[in-house]
Amino acid sequence: MDYQSVLERIARDVAPQVGSGRPAEYIPALASVDPRRFGMAIADVDGKVYGVGDWQRPFSTQSITKVFTLALVLAAGDDLWERVGREPSGNPFNSLVQLEYENGIPRNPFINAGALVVTDRLQTLTGDASSELLEFLRQESGNPGLAFDPEVAESESAHGDRNAALAHFMASYGNITNPVPTLLDHYFWQCAIEMSCADLALAARFLARHGLRADGSRLLTRSEAKQINAVMLTCGTYDAAGEFAHRVGLPGKSGVGGGIVAVVPGRCTLCVWSPGLDERGNSVAGVTALDRFTTLTGLSVF
Amino acid sequence: MDYQSVLERIARDVAPQVGSGRPAEYIPALASVDPRRFGMAIADVDGKVYGVGDWQRPFSTQSITKVFTLALVLAAGDDLWERVGREPSGNPFNSLVQLEYENGIPRNPFINAGALVVTDRLQTLTGDASSELLEFLRQESGNPGLAFDPEVAESESAHGDRNAALAHFMASYGNITNPVPTLLDHYFWQCAIEMSCADLALAARFLARHGLRADGSRLLTRSEAKQINAVMLTCGTYDAAGEFAHRVGLPGKSGVGGGIVAVVPGRCTLCVWSPGLDERGNSVAGVTALDRFTTLTGLSVF
Amino acid sequence: MDYQSVLERIARDVAPQVGSGRPAEYIPALASVDPRRFGMAIADVDGKVYGVGDWQRPFSTQSITKVFTLALVLAAGDDLWERVGREPSGNPFNSLVQLEYENGIPRNPFINAGALVVTDRLQTLTGDASSELLEFLRQESGNPGLAFDPEVAESESAHGDRNAALAHFMASYGNITNPVPTLLDHYFWQCAIEMSCADLALAARFLARHGLRADGSRLLTRSEAKQINAVMLTCGTYDAAGEFAHRVGLPGKSGVGGGIVAVVPGRCTLCVWSPGLDERGNSVAGVTALDRFTTLTGLSVF
Amino acid sequence: MDYQSVLERIARDVAPQVGSGRPAEYIPALASVDPRRFGMAIADVDGKVYGVGDWQRPFSTQSITKVFTLALVLAAGDDLWERVGREPSGNPFNSLVQLEYENGIPRNPFINAGALVVTDRLQTLTGDASSELLEFLRQESGNPGLAFDPEVAESESAHGDRNAALAHFMASYGNITNPVPTLLDHYFWQCAIEMSCADLALAARFLARHGLRADGSRLLTRSEAKQINAVMLTCGTYDAAGEFAHRVGLPGKSGVGGGIVAVVPGRCTLCVWSPGLDERGNSVAGVTALDRFTTLTGLSVF
Repeated sequence: MDYQSVLERIARDVAPQVGSGRPAEYIPALASVDPRRFGMAIADVDGKVYGVGDWQRPFSTQSITKVFTLALVLAAGDDLWERVGREPSGNPFNSLVQLEYENGIPRNPFINAGALVVTDRLQTLTGDASSELLEFLRQESGNPGLAFDPEVAESESAHGDRNAALAHFMASYGNITNPVPTLLDHYFWQCAIEMSCADLALAARFLARHGLRADGSRLLTRSEAKQINAVMLTCGTYDAAGEFAHRVGLPGKSGVGGGIVAVVPGRCTLCVWSPGLDERGNSVAGVTALDRFTTLTGLSVF
Repeated sequence: MDYQSVLERIARDVAPQVGSGRPAEYIPALASVDPRRFGMAIADVDGKVYGVGDWQRPFSTQSITKVFTLALVLAAGDDLWERVGREPSGNPFNSLVQLEYENGIPRNPFINAGALVVTDRLQTLTGDASSELLEFLRQESGNPGLAFDPEVAESESAHGDRNAALAHFMASYGNITNPVPTLLDHYFWQCAIEMSCADLALAARFLARHGLRADGSRLLTRSEAKQINAVMLTCGTYDAAGEFAHRVGLPGKSGVGGGIVAVVPGRCTLCVWSPGLDERGNSVAGVTALDRFTTLTGLSVF
Repeated sequence: MDYQSVLERIARDVAPQVGSGRPAEYIPALASVDPRRFGMAIADVDGKVYGVGDWQRPFSTQSITKVFTLALVLAAGDDLWERVGREPSGNPFNSLVQLEYENGIPRNPFINAGALVVTDRLQTLTGDASSELLEFLRQESGNPGLAFDPEVAESESAHGDRNAALAHFMASYGNITNPVPTLLDHYFWQCAIEMSCADLALAARFLARHGLRADGSRLLTRSEAKQINAVMLTCGTYDAAGEFAHRVGLPGKSGVGGGIVAVVPGRCTLCVWSPGLDERGNSVAGVTALDRFTTLTGLSVF
Repeated sequence: MDYQSVLERIARDVAPQVGSGRPAEYIPALASVDPRRFGMAIADVDGKVYGVGDWQRPFSTQSITKVFTLALVLAAGDDLWERVGREPSGNPFNSLVQLEYENGIPRNPFINAGALVVTDRLQTLTGDASSELLEFLRQESGNPGLAFDPEVAESESAHGDRNAALAHFMASYGNITNPVPTLLDHYFWQCAIEMSCADLALAARFLARHGLRADGSRLLTRSEAKQINAVMLTCGTYDAAGEFAHRVGLPGKSGVGGGIVAVVPGRCTLCVWSPGLDERGNSVAGVTALDRFTTLTGLSVF
């Protein structure tokens, strides 16, 4: 399939929507991004990369990195699924309600509460969760220049009361074991990694390669890779996962920086970026671009 | 692929689990079924059927028919998605809580509240929802002998207070337009259709054939067929959809009669039946059999 | 104390608020009442009645009659408190949410769900709940002309889906034992009784007389009368009970017809009526008038 | 009335229940208290004190001090009621659920979330909330030896994740303005004040004296004193306020140390203490003793 032509067709088709929606406004570093940015990249399973628009421009990955943290914890053989569920939450991504009714066990690893538990586990397993994650992303993307944006991390920390509440709440149930301030530091740093569409599409390839890393070594079993794809499809786009499955039909994970990573198992990985978000926190032009992709190529999982 | 061999292998593998779990007990007709039954069928896109065990024995379809009612309403061009959502519910299948917080709009067409709305629409569109459904199933399965089990329908009706509450509640928001007793009759009758694994695998083929009916005519657009598969994957197995996606990785719809229908888009449809249910209402041996199927064949969508 | 002077003073003080708020609009018979009506009556424990404004004009009692139904059921020695709680609900008066979390046991006898259970008990105990209630009110008020308004009862029934949902829902837990349509009939009829402020103040005197009826016979033990006053104070004004206790400081029960009955234990009973409601369903001028009463007389229970 | 005789009668009557229930176990200092302790004191409006049993033995006041913190904030003319409601919560005392649905505004000042807001206000108004409270209690009780128990304060802090979650959560809505660690320190210290039944009955007299302090100066207006009594009656005993109003019929505030303060407006204040708690956190023997008091004296507000 001629991915380059597809990307260029998509870029033309979604151009009218680029700039729609609103960038995340709760931290200055995200609010100041130019809303007219749009980039998209495809990495095939052999590592060839195609791109269009701002596909090589770094942006704030935010929640997208939760996929990689999850993969590292599962790769370490952790008994994570005893501490976090695998069901859609049916509630906004930072809800405390469900957590209370379910005794401190988050519904899935992609809502904030669940991602805090995953980071807590990685911190316990490695002693330095955010550095471990950054190193992994550098290796998989082949980009040794990947870095944290300290301004974003500090902004997240300054607006971190809600996540602090989630962490203390789960700690009261014994489901967080590191000191809450340490955990929050690592959590905010991992949200503050800057990557381009090209970087992310490359880094996520293990999900299309049934668990194999860029260097051919095995990160996850075939079954574990499938499981992460399943969780992405059912829980990867906040409380719009059903809508995303319906429109796009691919496993995907979005971030409030405007990026979305998607996977065509056995074929390729995609990353799209445009800062304007819909009311549920997903990139407006990004979702449309992925919808166009599956329509043009027929490569939906359904 | 040699589906017959696969089925026989699965039957051997799941034999130790057949009889586990408990049949649904809320109506006598379900409680009295022999829990040691197990059957499984595969229908390929060309209509060839393979089977093992009790694959030709009729059982109570229960919620599985919700897939077909949904397809008929969408095929009629109804604006259904303004009356029912497409998101996982995150709550047990007959919950009133979410319905109240969301003003009478059910989360998706497969929880009871959503299925009542879909049946209400089909009743409005056709004047006789349950007969319309039965006729469609006879045509697609090629089995003109399909029928309702009146004993099951009466039992459902006698235990129908919860569904009556749901229907009246949505009516108070204007989201049910037929008289509640009429609606409930059609709803209970459609749950009371008896079909075998072979019948169901054949009848669901339009989901693997991108919308084409058994006779080659088009029931749904490619996009609509994909949408139903997406809703099945995210919402088809009560509040265990995440777990089902994780383990099986196929669109599926279960019923408390112990049946599960699953779809491999472009390839085949499957139906498995064994009456023992887990605590979330899905067939224990059925889920295991589908898990084995995707493991043995690699035919998961992920 | 010169109750008549107090009433006249109150009437002058609240005059600017009469006409504020909005009459209940969900049924035509309530929506068409003149919002400028205002009446207030006091009945002392010896049966002397004082009044001002429209104090002798009948209005739709609505939820106020729930106090009397409760008294009749307790007087019959029923084990009601095993079927309904005595705690404030913390949620709007017709909420299904709490009912679901608490397995069909309503929080208290004054939310709609609880009042349905109380009426169900009275129906079981007497075979004709609404007639029994009407007869009791005629005797206590000394007004044999009290009657149902059939137009109101029919309107309630025509808008009764929410109450039907509540009743079926509790029936699914076994907490309603009469047929739902029968129960709803009696429930709607008891809401449709027309009474004046004078009638209601007189009829409620047993609450100020520690359980003694108008004819001196005992309806309730001293302890039971105290219990009803306590439930009125904590649960009698929908989800504004705390605010009402705070401002007025008396046991009270309101109805969406704009009436409120209040009790000064050992002293007197009051009834005020003005149709304009606040957003929580209590009469705007009525609450202010009772607030003035306790301020002018110091007769709050606190 | 001969309060001393009443107290001695009550002590005999409740003796069989002393030792029932379980002391609070979440901190060692509470768990190690002898469960057979029982004391009760009455202070009349003129300052005369009566007592029985362990009425002069200090115990951990815990949530009882929330009444006094509330009084100090209202006395300072704070606009507290814009930051905290006055309605019963209908949920356990440390619930996050309601707080989320209501945007960070706690239901009332006696649930933990509300008490944190009140302490936050006192800290802002005085710069040293816990010292201000201690000084007030020393003056009103006439006992200059009142002190914090540092061991209790430290234990509270060590088990403080749930309260930290509440505080951070409200801070995310802007409803907490002091730094969370500072706030929690003052909150835990105020829970750690040790007082006897005699001390507490004396210190609470301003609630029976319509706002007048021990020295005759005015702390609160008559209306403000009435408001606090109303909030105690509707919200003072966790989610058992309805039950407490029903059985006892007096404004009351309990603590997990086993103490309960109650008020007979215009007459006297009471404090009872016995460490064994029921499942909702109120002293078993304490509630029974107050029930006996109102039965023997007829001094219920109803």
